[in-house]
Amino acid sequence: MEEDKLKPIVVDTSLSPYSKLKPVAISSVKLQDNFWKPRIKILKEVTLPTQYEQLEKTGHIFNFQRASGKVKGEFQGFFFNDSDLYKWIEAVSYYLAQEYDERLNSLLERVIGEIESAQDEDGYLNTYFVFEKKNQRWENLRDMHELYCAGHLIQAAIAHYRATKSSRLLKVALKLADHIDNVFGPNKKYGAPGHPEIEMALVELFRLTRDKKYLRLSEFFIDQRGHGLIGGRELHIDHKPFRELDEIVGHAVRSVYLNCGAADIYMETGEEALLKALERLWENMTEKKMYITGGIGSRYEGESFGENYELPNEEAYCETCASIANIMWNWRMLLITGDAKFSDLIELTLYNAALAGISLDGKHYFYVNPLESRKKHERKEWYDCACCPPNIARLLASLPGYFYSTSEEGIWVHLYAKSEAKIELENLTVNIIQETNYPWEGEVLIRVEPNEESTFSIFLRVPGWSKLATIKVGDEEKLVHETGKYIEIRRKWKQGDEIRINFHVEVEKIFSNENVKNNLCKVAIKRGPIIYCIESVDNPNLNIFNLSLPLDSELKTRWTANLLNGINIIEGEALYSELDNTKEKLYTSSYELTKSLSKVRFTAIPYYAWANRGKSDMLVWIKISKMFFNNLRSKEKQ
Amino acid sequence: MEEDKLKPIVVDTSLSPYSKLKPVAISSVKLQDNFWKPRIKILKEVTLPTQYEQLEKTGHIFNFQRASGKVKGEFQGFFFNDSDLYKWIEAVSYYLAQEYDERLNSLLERVIGEIESAQDEDGYLNTYFVFEKKNQRWENLRDMHELYCAGHLIQAAIAHYRATKSSRLLKVALKLADHIDNVFGPNKKYGAPGHPEIEMALVELFRLTRDKKYLRLSEFFIDQRGHGLIGGRELHIDHKPFRELDEIVGHAVRSVYLNCGAADIYMETGEEALLKALERLWENMTEKKMYITGGIGSRYEGESFGENYELPNEEAYCETCASIANIMWNWRMLLITGDAKFSDLIELTLYNAALAGISLDGKHYFYVNPLESRKKHERKEWYDCACCPPNIARLLASLPGYFYSTSEEGIWVHLYAKSEAKIELENLTVNIIQETNYPWEGEVLIRVEPNEESTFSIFLRVPGWSKLATIKVGDEEKLVHETGKYIEIRRKWKQGDEIRINFHVEVEKIFSNENVKNNLCKVAIKRGPIIYCIESVDNPNLNIFNLSLPLDSELKTRWTANLLNGINIIEGEALYSELDNTKEKLYTSSYELTKSLSKVRFTAIPYYAWANRGKSDMLVWIKISKMFFNNLRSKEKQ
Repeated sequence: MEEDKLKPIVVDTSLSPYSKLKPVAISSVKLQDNFWKPRIKILKEVTLPTQYEQLEKTGHIFNFQRASGKVKGEFQGFFFNDSDLYKWIEAVSYYLAQEYDERLNSLLERVIGEIESAQDEDGYLNTYFVFEKKNQRWENLRDMHELYCAGHLIQAAIAHYRATKSSRLLKVALKLADHIDNVFGPNKKYGAPGHPEIEMALVELFRLTRDKKYLRLSEFFIDQRGHGLIGGRELHIDHKPFRELDEIVGHAVRSVYLNCGAADIYMETGEEALLKALERLWENMTEKKMYITGGIGSRYEGESFGENYELPNEEAYCETCASIANIMWNWRMLLITGDAKFSDLIELTLYNAALAGISLDGKHYFYVNPLESRKKHERKEWYDCACCPPNIARLLASLPGYFYSTSEEGIWVHLYAKSEAKIELENLTVNIIQETNYPWEGEVLIRVEPNEESTFSIFLRVPGWSKLATIKVGDEEKLVHETGKYIEIRRKWKQGDEIRINFHVEVEKIFSNENVKNNLCKVAIKRGPIIYCIESVDNPNLNIFNLSLPLDSELKTRWTANLLNGINIIEGEALYSELDNTKEKLYTSSYELTKSLSKVRFTAIPYYAWANRGKSDMLVWIKISKMFFNNLRSKEKQ
Repeated sequence: MEEDKLKPIVVDTSLSPYSKLKPVAISSVKLQDNFWKPRIKILKEVTLPTQYEQLEKTGHIFNFQRASGKVKGEFQGFFFNDSDLYKWIEAVSYYLAQEYDERLNSLLERVIGEIESAQDEDGYLNTYFVFEKKNQRWENLRDMHELYCAGHLIQAAIAHYRATKSSRLLKVALKLADHIDNVFGPNKKYGAPGHPEIEMALVELFRLTRDKKYLRLSEFFIDQRGHGLIGGRELHIDHKPFRELDEIVGHAVRSVYLNCGAADIYMETGEEALLKALERLWENMTEKKMYITGGIGSRYEGESFGENYELPNEEAYCETCASIANIMWNWRMLLITGDAKFSDLIELTLYNAALAGISLDGKHYFYVNPLESRKKHERKEWYDCACCPPNIARLLASLPGYFYSTSEEGIWVHLYAKSEAKIELENLTVNIIQETNYPWEGEVLIRVEPNEESTFSIFLRVPGWSKLATIKVGDEEKLVHETGKYIEIRRKWKQGDEIRINFHVEVEKIFSNENVKNNLCKVAIKRGPIIYCIESVDNPNLNIFNLSLPLDSELKTRWTANLLNGINIIEGEALYSELDNTKEKLYTSSYELTKSLSKVRFTAIPYYAWANRGKSDMLVWIKISKMFFNNLRSKEKQ
């Protein structure tokens, strides 16, 4: 741990032998755009402070003070509450890596003090299992989430150390990790956590310390699964050994956190069986079990993945944490492979499923994220089970770290936003300046400024949603037909070089595989990476569920600066029936249909921005009209 | 029973105080068309003789000989087999009313002789309950179908008497009916048949004899239901008193035969509660429980109606007998009301659900009539439960009787086909001559030839499937916008007057209420009254289930004289995917979709004609394509 080499990196694959891509630190990328930068300002000014207030109000800090004997009283909230505070620390640490803030730092220091005091002499730390519960420690790994909480502590401590160079919390985490290593392992206690999380934390601790015992312990926990030690159920992903999994099942967050851990192990060990299992799970998830928003985990029951193609809209669970987990997993898969299918999915989930989890004002949250609502869903300031709010905070706080990677060949550009980055290659520093109005527009100007003229590659992600793309460097223009790939531009780069990219941002109609019964006859609207929805507040005179969209409806985009912090709305014409379908005839010919429909205008907004104006009807999947306008006009002419 | 007034009429409402319409006899209408007339020729030459052979081969005649002691052996087939023979007698009788045939008549006489011999002294007649089973008579009304068989005997006897003026079989039927009247009734035996049928037969017997006891007995059987006497189940329509029914449930044939009986009673008694119940049941059936072909009874289980909107295609039961029952019920509703919604449905069911029950060669049958098949369904020469074959025979044999009615105002034209009719009004005889190529074309020329100049009305059914219609009499042309109605033309008619009608026969795309999950995203093709299907035999290089129809696909009609006895085929372009949808992506944008589809030509044939060329894939409901050709062409241009 050479302190001068410390950088605020979430997943530090710098030395990982089986990761293709190497990290670019959070602090190396300065966002200057109108989409993310204002959100990160709100994160600092509203989200992180109000989350602290909530954590205090709901006893999260109290529990630590109680455990250390400073105060008396009953344990407050859920037995896994410690993890919420740890995630908040991780979030604040990432934010501090972007920009130092005295107020947030002093809050951190205070909280870390409380954590230090609550730790046992032997390193054990969990504020629920103290006093009369002390003898229940490590007794119920399936349900009691001690290892889960420990994992979050380790992640928080690493983030805090890398961001602030203060090792206060890291010392606590190491002491706990060593305690766990003393308790668990071959010829020690066997078992695995019912809620994975510690696996990836331990690999990251190995990356930081280079102490292999943490990597071995992480592997140990993965290896224990599938032998009935924690009950043998799919819910806990204990029904099969990890390397034999071929269908993604169980609690979505647990399942995907586990995949993160396995991917982390793979990057260190190169064990093919792990990667093969991960690829199978990814394929199953993306082809059969994922919402169009990138959200996962369709069932309320067990917060779990459903059957293949079980993707209800109104009854979607689609937990915010699961979306974040999905980004975390895809980030690791991207680091392993450099395959744009993973970064495409990171982008999709980021702009849609994950971002919907936090309100525009930065202090209201969704735990579940339905794709359809009948005024039933409302954002809340906090949840009794408060896993999602600090999780979305740590994602947003670390966001600059997801923009770039490096490899031996050069620089990889994953995400686009107006920004400046300072990227270190071997013996070379390259400033990358992005000028763009992404995600609203598809033009991106990238200035490449190496500190000296040098030959290297720039890998540009051409998003799969872009029908085609043009990339122009100097006089050379490249037309990219096959998108969803990284395009390598290898040349001698010098100060003043520019790349002009044009992605094809246009309104697309998206259809679902017809095995998804809930989306039959329905279409979704997407523009660039952004999924749209129709919210009744924008369409006050319509029952939005009676709208149907003719497939030739021309959908127009209009920039609307004063709505929902500035968005492109999409407007179009649709057909409208006053009738509820139980009152409609059983069979209707097209000419009869024409009579019962009227033409109306409707407005759609980005899905992430819904439910920011009170309770509203909302839908992502719009009924496809059986009429199309061309044919309607010819009818009208008759 | 004045013999000289006897006419071959199926439902003789001549004296029924609550029927708006009065009958025109089967013998009064001579079909001369190319659609029905060849079928009736086949009926005589193939269907009725081969059915007799089957009846003989399967022991139906033997059972009567056995019962009368002429032969020895075991009873053969199902305990309700007598009814099959009775329906065949009814069919032959109707045929004889159209055209006398010595061979068929002598067969009849022989069979009637066997029936006469099998009847007990006390009038009881059922060949199953003889010898050792004698003491079980009338013991199990729910399951053993004695009253059902009796009903069919009565119907056959009335038909035979009206057609031939021979009262041989009628005498048997009267003796049985009187026996039943001795056994059942207030202060006698209580009960109701598990399989209705006798109710309408008894009313018809009342109409013939004017003996009110038969009407009262029919009412008695209706009144007994819904009090648990036959088990209280929906299957037997015993869950509620008839007058309280509001949802059509239970065994489809039983349910609808019961409705026929109730409608018959209403026409005699005018009891509003019966009519109201019938209207509720009709509305529920047509708006929620009927196939697009007019077929009913979606479930194999209990051969019953399903829940509202439960209309599976491949697993449709849709028994041929139920379609015939549906025509019988609608005929009665039409007689009561003169409302074209009933005759529209008669026409629909006749040309589609019912006609599909018999092969073009006249000697193969369908018992169940799916709307989709994966080479699973094949017509058979006979069924162990042989209710459908003679039922379709009696329908076709009586078909001329469904063309016209009269009322005080004049003549009602229900069906269209090239034909000549001689219709008696009060003090007037009117010849009605139809010239038309209906159902293939929409032009109908009607010559009206009263034997003397006279003022009366002609009511023309303008089918609901016709978008609009023109009706021209002399120089007067009427444009009919609201179709699905009878248009009354009242004037002074004289020899040589003509009505020129033009119905709008064009290919229509039909959509299903979206509550029918099986038809979501699907479209059916209809032209005039005829529902089309796609059969793989006509589309040999395609997996027809991978076809999808763009809604702007232009569907063209082509007369094809040498196919399936002459049909209009419908041809068009569709899109085709080689991929099974489990291999398709979860979400696909319209531009991606274009790439995966190819354009193909397909051929559709009338549904009634399917499965006449061996086992084939077949579907009525075709997937709607998410693309339309206009939009595809603009894509191609790019």
